[in-house]
Amino acid sequence: MPLDHTAKGVYVIAPTPFHPDGRVDEASTDRMTDFFLQSGCDGMTILGVMGEAPKLDGAESLEISRRIIRRAGKAGIIVGVTAPGFAAMRALAHGVMEAGAAGVMIAPPSHLRHDEAIVGYFHQAVEAIGTDIPWVLQDYPQLFQVQMTPGIIRRIVTELPSCVMLKHEDWPGLEKISALRKFQAEGSMRPISILCGNGGIFLDFEMERGADGAMTGYAFPDMLVELVRLAQAGERDRAHDLFDAHLPLIRYELQPGVGLAVRKYVLMRRGVLASDAQRRPGAAMSAKARDEVEYLLARLGRHDPRARLSPPA
Amino acid sequence: MPLDHTAKGVYVIAPTPFHPDGRVDEASTDRMTDFFLQSGCDGMTILGVMGEAPKLDGAESLEISRRIIRRAGKAGIIVGVTAPGFAAMRALAHGVMEAGAAGVMIAPPSHLRHDEAIVGYFHQAVEAIGTDIPWVLQDYPQLFQVQMTPGIIRRIVTELPSCVMLKHEDWPGLEKISALRKFQAEGSMRPISILCGNGGIFLDFEMERGADGAMTGYAFPDMLVELVRLAQAGERDRAHDLFDAHLPLIRYELQPGVGLAVRKYVLMRRGVLASDAQRRPGAAMSAKARDEVEYLLARLGRHDPRARLSPPA
Amino acid sequence: MPLDHTAKGVYVIAPTPFHPDGRVDEASTDRMTDFFLQSGCDGMTILGVMGEAPKLDGAESLEISRRIIRRAGKAGIIVGVTAPGFAAMRALAHGVMEAGAAGVMIAPPSHLRHDEAIVGYFHQAVEAIGTDIPWVLQDYPQLFQVQMTPGIIRRIVTELPSCVMLKHEDWPGLEKISALRKFQAEGSMRPISILCGNGGIFLDFEMERGADGAMTGYAFPDMLVELVRLAQAGERDRAHDLFDAHLPLIRYELQPGVGLAVRKYVLMRRGVLASDAQRRPGAAMSAKARDEVEYLLARLGRHDPRARLSPPA
Amino acid sequence: MPLDHTAKGVYVIAPTPFHPDGRVDEASTDRMTDFFLQSGCDGMTILGVMGEAPKLDGAESLEISRRIIRRAGKAGIIVGVTAPGFAAMRALAHGVMEAGAAGVMIAPPSHLRHDEAIVGYFHQAVEAIGTDIPWVLQDYPQLFQVQMTPGIIRRIVTELPSCVMLKHEDWPGLEKISALRKFQAEGSMRPISILCGNGGIFLDFEMERGADGAMTGYAFPDMLVELVRLAQAGERDRAHDLFDAHLPLIRYELQPGVGLAVRKYVLMRRGVLASDAQRRPGAAMSAKARDEVEYLLARLGRHDPRARLSPPA
Repeated sequence: MPLDHTAKGVYVIAPTPFHPDGRVDEASTDRMTDFFLQSGCDGMTILGVMGEAPKLDGAESLEISRRIIRRAGKAGIIVGVTAPGFAAMRALAHGVMEAGAAGVMIAPPSHLRHDEAIVGYFHQAVEAIGTDIPWVLQDYPQLFQVQMTPGIIRRIVTELPSCVMLKHEDWPGLEKISALRKFQAEGSMRPISILCGNGGIFLDFEMERGADGAMTGYAFPDMLVELVRLAQAGERDRAHDLFDAHLPLIRYELQPGVGLAVRKYVLMRRGVLASDAQRRPGAAMSAKARDEVEYLLARLGRHDPRARLSPPA
Repeated sequence: MPLDHTAKGVYVIAPTPFHPDGRVDEASTDRMTDFFLQSGCDGMTILGVMGEAPKLDGAESLEISRRIIRRAGKAGIIVGVTAPGFAAMRALAHGVMEAGAAGVMIAPPSHLRHDEAIVGYFHQAVEAIGTDIPWVLQDYPQLFQVQMTPGIIRRIVTELPSCVMLKHEDWPGLEKISALRKFQAEGSMRPISILCGNGGIFLDFEMERGADGAMTGYAFPDMLVELVRLAQAGERDRAHDLFDAHLPLIRYELQPGVGLAVRKYVLMRRGVLASDAQRRPGAAMSAKARDEVEYLLARLGRHDPRARLSPPA
Repeated sequence: MPLDHTAKGVYVIAPTPFHPDGRVDEASTDRMTDFFLQSGCDGMTILGVMGEAPKLDGAESLEISRRIIRRAGKAGIIVGVTAPGFAAMRALAHGVMEAGAAGVMIAPPSHLRHDEAIVGYFHQAVEAIGTDIPWVLQDYPQLFQVQMTPGIIRRIVTELPSCVMLKHEDWPGLEKISALRKFQAEGSMRPISILCGNGGIFLDFEMERGADGAMTGYAFPDMLVELVRLAQAGERDRAHDLFDAHLPLIRYELQPGVGLAVRKYVLMRRGVLASDAQRRPGAAMSAKARDEVEYLLARLGRHDPRARLSPPA
Repeated sequence: MPLDHTAKGVYVIAPTPFHPDGRVDEASTDRMTDFFLQSGCDGMTILGVMGEAPKLDGAESLEISRRIIRRAGKAGIIVGVTAPGFAAMRALAHGVMEAGAAGVMIAPPSHLRHDEAIVGYFHQAVEAIGTDIPWVLQDYPQLFQVQMTPGIIRRIVTELPSCVMLKHEDWPGLEKISALRKFQAEGSMRPISILCGNGGIFLDFEMERGADGAMTGYAFPDMLVELVRLAQAGERDRAHDLFDAHLPLIRYELQPGVGLAVRKYVLMRRGVLASDAQRRPGAAMSAKARDEVEYLLARLGRHDPRARLSPPA
């Protein structure tokens, strides 16, 4: 099923599981895929910033994508195809769509500094991959240094019909969601799906502003699923209660660089990954950081049984 | 009392109070100074990033500094003197030290991209202001785009004896605190005071890593004071309980741009400021954002009586 | 006479003369002012990037401006008022206009990354200084990292009537001049004056594309005056012959950082400045660099008698 | 023959020839290779910034590399392998070395902002490609925004023995060459080859400062060869006479973005390329720009017979 603007729920950002010696861990990849889908995720996004994509060569990227797509069955898999050139972007996009991906995700390069450059870049990208591949616009100014106002996003959505979703991770971004939904309400922009990233650190209010769900890799995607459902059901207080219990760990996992190490560590502690190894070069957790994460898990466990893990080996 | 490396506790980042028409609000300035000191703050840092310093001209900057210094009595006032040129930096530094400031704070300009450039800049700054003014090194790579490793900070501290404090707001920064304290422990760096910024969002663990306190402007500085004391007393769980109750609001106030509006709004709601006005140009809160802050305050009030405010007018 | 869109010719970028001990050199300032005007310059631009403005405090900036404005008589003096905050910008702008400046020059801060931010910044600047001060828009993306398309410049010119001149130093910029002149020709933008910077390194073709003259500080402003006149008279080959003879030195002087040292050195060698000193911190020329400049002057002297200088002391 | 530190002369930066419809033009590729070597170039550097490398997919990159390496015979071919991830860098590096390349070239990513980050990056790159592949360090801060002092370059050269050459294109860079040669003379750095880029715009003085030659793509590589030989023979005045005649065009071709269009146009006019087409997206020359280039060629033709071309079709 190709991705479209009605997508909602949780598309979890998946890490790439590695063995400690750097090889791709296929068993963990399968287990992780199963875990994410059994957790209630509606889809997965792979080969993103947190998927260590640049550490994979082209053949590996395609192989992992095919494995996860096959395993995921009907759940939608979105593949990050951001690349320094359009030739590489097209090659990967075509490869994964043939393998059954639901769509691709594209982020802008950091040198774009005015409206024409930003909008023009996405025109070129769509020309490169073809107009028939549904794609997600990644809006993450902290990392990519490109600032897209609501007006710029509206132009991209209006001029490029194959853009069906926004991965929203601007910071601050609450007013941006409200502005985009207002565009839709007044009829000046066609509907798009808005899924939120940024580690989920504003997901409580993002849902209230009109987001359709989450696209982030917090190590408790089952909590994200529950939170999205509570929010969609209008259970405001219960949603915030759940969110607030997780916020200390969400905040800890959001740290640039070391965040991925935390995420993989928790997924290992939960039995999803066999190892928290990153392919080199990667940031490791210190012993103190591990203690802090264990402390946060123990505190979280008082409120959420999913965090009650047996002690580490 | 000039600032030295033994400083600890809370040096609150003070906003600059304005009337809605843009004039400096002197009554609110006095009330705010009294409130901060009665809250247990050991000092204040004024004319920082959150003090709207660039919207003040030179005469206004000096006048406000003098007013606060006089009002604060024995509490130490640190004044931000970061400037695009050393002439302006020197002029302001000399002016406020003559008025009785405890020290000044200096951040690096964004174009510094290797060790020699970074260290060299602070040598030039100290040459400009004189070697007898105690100063705080502001390490805030997210905003200033300058990345100082622990080794670079050690060089600055070692080569420039008048540097007595680090305003630590790297992100991630926990390992940096540990690394600097290890330098001290092994005798390779003289002791400095480390106070933490970044809105306080990691203050729980920063204290455990060896920080001396906080230098941030969260609108509940009385909570920061309590948290620092609990941490210093080794009351780990109680410190985290207090911190976690405030984290949803801390997180909300940390948003770039709109964060200052939130901070001034809460200080107004607490009766400290007469108005949450910013001098132009400034980011305003939407009605939705105000509702969200009120909701966060109401939830916080369940745990902390300081947040139980009468409804807004 | 206030600056307006009919300005043309050469507005030379003036360095600030210092004594070797760092004091402002007033005698050299007067001599330099006389020299520039006797060279045929129509005006001067002071306190720009190459004027070491950040090394002057507010009082010094005003004093130097007043001295030059008084000395220059009817020639138009433009003063750079770019500042990190609008309060400082307004204070300097008002000060120099009261002293008789013809207008001010404003460059955008480096963080502006889309059309609304760029155009909005200049609206705020004009609100700060007042709508009655004629100002020059400085378009120098290499240094300021802000990219203004012809369309953005048109918006600024159209929405802000007090913008009367573009200091054009984009690179590449020839097509930009053509685009702006086409806007004027088709009636979609009111006329503005376009003076070119970038050390003059494209002045030969910039004049042919429709520029009104030069605003740069090359140490032979008398050559710039002659070149502009030849170009305006349609003497294409003679203009290029003159330009090409100077190009090796123009290129050498254009080097970032060391360029100002070269410029001051040549002005000293020409008897205009008593010293080539920069106020600290400043980049100095090595002995090898001085030899290279002397070699370039000697080679230039074969074509242009203005470069036949007596040997250095 | 693997590249080593004794390399000197001209390693021309080669564009990638395309047909107007975007296909690689193999006949032009062969003719260009022959032309460069018959012009006296000692080697070629392919898939660099000016080679439109990001517009080629992995298979095309390898195929073009193989074709040129085979055609070039004993002349050394250096291949740009800069990539956003080490997996892609390793794959291309191994592919081209197996095909007979002399070495590879690596540029740093733009986010490196202190010494440890910069030096560490190249350690990781060498770990990825293997310690047995000779490589060229590309120092081009204008484009890559990474600033490497002479001391940082010395660390890289000292710690990583497979680094045998510096592609020097800092601006300003003359003192950097002198500093590196001084390191060698005093024995604090082993010898490396230094070839200069930046379009050749400082090649006259760079040779005098101790450079071994040029690595740039100016459309008259035969002139670069002659200039390098004159400089090596100590014919200072003749070298500058030749250089100065070409400087107006060198300067014109150095323009970012449009420069490649100029370069391909002149190579087409010289009969080397069948077309000046760039693969999309690419900057095109306006009719005015073509006229300007023709005018520059006509002027150059008065001094250098190589520029006396028959009129364009």
